[in-house]
Amino acid sequence: MKHVADPTHPRYRSLLMRAKIEEAVKAGLLADSALIAHGRGEAFDYLLGERTSESAMQATKEAAARLMAAEHPIISFNGNTVALAAEELLKCAAVMGADVEINIFYRTEERMRLLISSVSKTKESLKHEAPDGFSADEWSRMVESVRILGGEPDGLIPGLEGPRANCHSEGILSADVLLVPLEDGDRCEALVAMGAEVIVIDLNPISRSARMASVTVVDELTRFALNLYEEMKKPGKPDDDWNNQAILDAAVNSVTFTEQ
Amino acid sequence: MKHVADPTHPRYRSLLMRAKIEEAVKAGLLADSALIAHGRGEAFDYLLGERTSESAMQATKEAAARLMAAEHPIISFNGNTVALAAEELLKCAAVMGADVEINIFYRTEERMRLLISSVSKTKESLKHEAPDGFSADEWSRMVESVRILGGEPDGLIPGLEGPRANCHSEGILSADVLLVPLEDGDRCEALVAMGAEVIVIDLNPISRSARMASVTVVDELTRFALNLYEEMKKPGKPDDDWNNQAILDAAVNSVTFTEQ
Repeated sequence: MKHVADPTHPRYRSLLMRAKIEEAVKAGLLADSALIAHGRGEAFDYLLGERTSESAMQATKEAAARLMAAEHPIISFNGNTVALAAEELLKCAAVMGADVEINIFYRTEERMRLLISSVSKTKESLKHEAPDGFSADEWSRMVESVRILGGEPDGLIPGLEGPRANCHSEGILSADVLLVPLEDGDRCEALVAMGAEVIVIDLNPISRSARMASVTVVDELTRFALNLYEEMKKPGKPDDDWNNQAILDAAVNSVTFTEQ
Repeated sequence: MKHVADPTHPRYRSLLMRAKIEEAVKAGLLADSALIAHGRGEAFDYLLGERTSESAMQATKEAAARLMAAEHPIISFNGNTVALAAEELLKCAAVMGADVEINIFYRTEERMRLLISSVSKTKESLKHEAPDGFSADEWSRMVESVRILGGEPDGLIPGLEGPRANCHSEGILSADVLLVPLEDGDRCEALVAMGAEVIVIDLNPISRSARMASVTVVDELTRFALNLYEEMKKPGKPDDDWNNQAILDAAVNSVTFTEQ
C-alpha cells in the first residue's frame, strides 16, 4: 500500500480509500474508468463533509432491518466495492447469512478471475478473525458459508443486454433483498424491475440508482459497511411505510459548501 | 479517440472530455491520479448543470480584460489541461501574446517530454487554421510566437519544495498575469505569494486554489477557453474593484441538485 498521510490527517480516510483504488488499478482489478467514478464519489463525499449524515444513518438502520429479515439476501460486488470494502461487507454477509455475487460493468474474464481471487483471499483471512461476540469456530463457519458467486453465471438479468446481464440463478436472480453498492443506473433499474427489494449505496442522491432504489444510503461505502455491521447486531423491523424520497431530500439538503 | 455517444446526447461534452482524459492516460501523458481529479471535476460540473453560470461568465470577462492588458501573460498547462484544452488555450495564447509553460504535479522527464511533444504538435497544426478575422500569414506568425516552456526550467517558485518548484525565469517567474487552470492549492498559493495576478479555473468554488486566486472562474475548462477566446476579441478594462469573493459566493449558489 502506497504511503498515506498519518491517521490524524483530517482527510485520512479519503486519502486511504483513494490509495486502495489506485492500488487495485495497478493490480489489474479495475478499469481506468473506476478512477473517474471514484473521483466523482470523492467530490460528493467532500460536499457531505466526509461524514455520515443523520438521514444516511436512518437509511442504514432500515437496510440492516431488511437484510436481517430477508430470506435470501445477496450483496453485489463490483470492482470498486472489492477494492474499497470487501472485508467489511464480507463480515456483514457472514452475519446476515448472505452470499456475495461479483458483477462488473466492463466484464472481462481476466478481471473477473482477479476479483474472485481477491475476494476469496479476503474471505479466507477473515475466517480467522472472529469479532467480539463470536467464538472462533462459530465465526469460521459463518464466514465459510458465504459463497462467492459471479464466476460461472447461469442466468440473465431481464432487460439488460451484453455481458452485464450475466448473473447466477442461485444468486441475484433469486434474491429477495439485494444490497448493491455503487451500481450503475441501468442495472439498478433492471434489478428493481425483477421485483427484489434493492438497497443502493450511492454518494450522489440524484443519480438514477439512488432514485430507483427501495432504500438509498447516501454515504461513503466503507463508513456505511462499518455502520451496517453495528446495526445488524440490533436490527429493528423493516418499516412498511418507508419513505425513500424523504431520505433523498434530506441527503440533498445535507450537501454544503463548507470549508473543511 | 474512443467512441463517444452522438453529439445530441445531453451529456455529450462531458463524455467527450472523459474520453480525452482516458486517451491521454493510455498515451502516457497523465498519471492515474489525473483520472481521479477529472472525476471530481465531473461531479462538480454535474452540480453546476454542465453549463457556464452568469458569475463564471463575469469572471471570464475579467480574465480576458486582465490577460489582454498584461505585459507578460503566461498560461500554465498541467497534464489535464493539455489533454482537455491545449488547442483552445493555444489559440488564446496566440491572441493575447502569451507563452505557455508546462508544469506538472508528478513531474517525470518522460511525461514532460510527451506533454511538450503533444503541445508542440497541436501548435504546429493550429498554425494552419486561421480563424475568422485573421489572415493566414498573420495567424501563422501569432501562433509561431507562442513559446512552449517547461522543458528546461532554470528557476524555482519560492516557497515550494521538490520538482514542483521548477519553472522558467522567462516564463512563470517573470509573468505579471498568470492563467492557471486546474492548479493544486500549494502551487497556487506560492504563485500568488510571488506577486503575480493569478487567474484560476476550478470547478470547486471552495478549493484552496479558488479561494487564493485574484480572479476565479468556476467553469469547465473547455467551456471557459472557448468563452475566453470570444471575450478577448472585445476586452473591457480590468476592474480595479474586482470582488472575487462575490464571484465565489455566486458560484456556490449556482450549485443545485437538479435532475438532468
